[in-house]
Amino acid sequence: MAQGLKVLSAALPQDVKLETRSYDLGARRWHATGETLPDADLESLKNHDAILLGAIGDPSVPSGVLERGLLLKLRFAFDHYVNLRPSKLFPNTATPLAGRPDIDFVVVREGTEGPYVGNGGTLRAGTPAEVATEVSLNTAYGVERVVRDAYERADARPRKKLTLVHKNNVLVHAGHLWKNIFDRVGQEYPEVTTDYLHVDAATIFFVTQPERFDVIVTDNLFGDILTDLAAAVTGGIGLAASGNINPSGAFPSMFEPVHGSAPDIAGTGKADPTATVLSVALLLSHLGYADEAARVEAAVGADLAERDAAAPRTTDEIGDALAARVSG
Amino acid sequence: MAQGLKVLSAALPQDVKLETRSYDLGARRWHATGETLPDADLESLKNHDAILLGAIGDPSVPSGVLERGLLLKLRFAFDHYVNLRPSKLFPNTATPLAGRPDIDFVVVREGTEGPYVGNGGTLRAGTPAEVATEVSLNTAYGVERVVRDAYERADARPRKKLTLVHKNNVLVHAGHLWKNIFDRVGQEYPEVTTDYLHVDAATIFFVTQPERFDVIVTDNLFGDILTDLAAAVTGGIGLAASGNINPSGAFPSMFEPVHGSAPDIAGTGKADPTATVLSVALLLSHLGYADEAARVEAAVGADLAERDAAAPRTTDEIGDALAARVSG
Ligand SMILES: CC(C)[C@H](C(=O)O)[C@@H](O)C(=O)O
Ligand SMILES: CC(C)[C@H](C(=O)O)[C@@H](O)C(=O)O
Repeated sequence: MAQGLKVLSAALPQDVKLETRSYDLGARRWHATGETLPDADLESLKNHDAILLGAIGDPSVPSGVLERGLLLKLRFAFDHYVNLRPSKLFPNTATPLAGRPDIDFVVVREGTEGPYVGNGGTLRAGTPAEVATEVSLNTAYGVERVVRDAYERADARPRKKLTLVHKNNVLVHAGHLWKNIFDRVGQEYPEVTTDYLHVDAATIFFVTQPERFDVIVTDNLFGDILTDLAAAVTGGIGLAASGNINPSGAFPSMFEPVHGSAPDIAGTGKADPTATVLSVALLLSHLGYADEAARVEAAVGADLAERDAAAPRTTDEIGDALAARVSG
Repeated sequence: MAQGLKVLSAALPQDVKLETRSYDLGARRWHATGETLPDADLESLKNHDAILLGAIGDPSVPSGVLERGLLLKLRFAFDHYVNLRPSKLFPNTATPLAGRPDIDFVVVREGTEGPYVGNGGTLRAGTPAEVATEVSLNTAYGVERVVRDAYERADARPRKKLTLVHKNNVLVHAGHLWKNIFDRVGQEYPEVTTDYLHVDAATIFFVTQPERFDVIVTDNLFGDILTDLAAAVTGGIGLAASGNINPSGAFPSMFEPVHGSAPDIAGTGKADPTATVLSVALLLSHLGYADEAARVEAAVGADLAERDAAAPRTTDEIGDALAARVSG
């Protein structure tokens, strides 16, 4: 997080005064107080232009507590309906794919609906007659706004290609809603080429032909799965950044690395801040600092190109190097 | 399909008389009669020891019609709760992964529950106020039987390792049901090493470290996604076989290639029958012909090892070659 803020300061124009406030959230707070995200913090967070969220999670906290009590709570409370996850294979980064295909796409993952709504239940827990449900909720309101956002992004890119990923041969109700809206909104974007893939088929193309993708729009759960796979093929989640965006500006958008918190190396200086720094680039771009965002991304690209696996640097050293490239 | 039957005949012991009956199902029938799987056919299919299902699907049939009216109808009607999908990287086959990792695992996908139950609906279709739902149903009854089957399979393999894949930090109700049953049944299999992965993380390991997997057990939808990815990393769905198994024997089990029907090359002699032949190996093994199954799999391995991309063979020639290896 410190490196992210360092690079953010370095990137902003001289006349912009950066005001930050830090919130102590996550595993330590939960252990100390039992709280994840108290209402007072949520209220106070509303007053910011943007949120930079550090990687959260710790094996000492039961699975789901921080995910649902903090991360998903923020995404839902601040109506982050565009979960933006760019995937790019930078030079000099390891990919598990043979032949190093050209990868440069962005996934627009819906962030406030689908199977993530927390609408499920358990009957007769712990007995042989137990039944557990999970309900995926999908609304025209929710799907249309994210689909429209994805068309806008596709229209603004040179290749202008948008792929819808769903599973409409099985999840017919949600699938038809997505597909109908996708087709209808598409009529307003005649220059955008469109495509539809079932989620299972999409995973195949992610490893055999990732260069075919430009912008992908998909539901919350499929987006979760696909973006981890996308991160893996572009060099690992150590480089994956994401934006939880409320395009209306009614609430602050939130930027975070896709990776977890690696509590085993916290404080040792071994953590790689690159995904957080790339999240800062997304933050800058969201706030209208497109040139500054491009400079941060270029700095990361240049830094990666010169990395020497035999000479690892500390977290601080990487942050300093990136900040220097950005200011200089 | 013809090549699959050819190899099946060649593999069976001399004294076993193979009786087959062929059912005309799929796109052609649907176009001609509007039927997918009439009750009379379903009844009649019950009298068989096993079903070999040809690849179905055609772009001229609306998405979902054959999938739900034929394939899923059979899986549900015949209670195919174990959807078995082995993944093995054969020599001389192309994989998109650099370094050709050692891949030899099997996915035990639940086949009768989860988001596949068809429990969803649409309210105010086609209006801006439309809502669509999909309900994932999970029962202790359904989860325990497939988890137990997976432990049995893991226990019978040399590495004895079983990984549960779910998303229990978000889908907490279904996720806890799966995890609790997985842990409880595991106490009966002290020699099996266990592991849990979220589905998003699992996709990462499928491309970065597939050799870590031995047996995987997972829900219907996650299994659908993961097995296509598994097929891609082991050389494409042209080689992926699957068994839809009812271990109780109350209904016939069904074996099918994972790939679709490729109507554009139907009848041209260009289709590769290998996935169907590997499905025949699963069928033989399910009916107790373990040695014969091993011979079919070995024949495929040997055939693949000698394939020459510069000298493609017809569907028939590949079938003949495999049958000859199996009998000889
Ligand atoms: C931690 C978890 C709740 C989260 C998600 O499932 O969205 C994560 O996997 C992600 O992709 O941001
Ligand atoms: C065709 C479709 C219904 C099916 C599924 O989703 O199960 C297929 O993808 C599979 O994996 O067998």
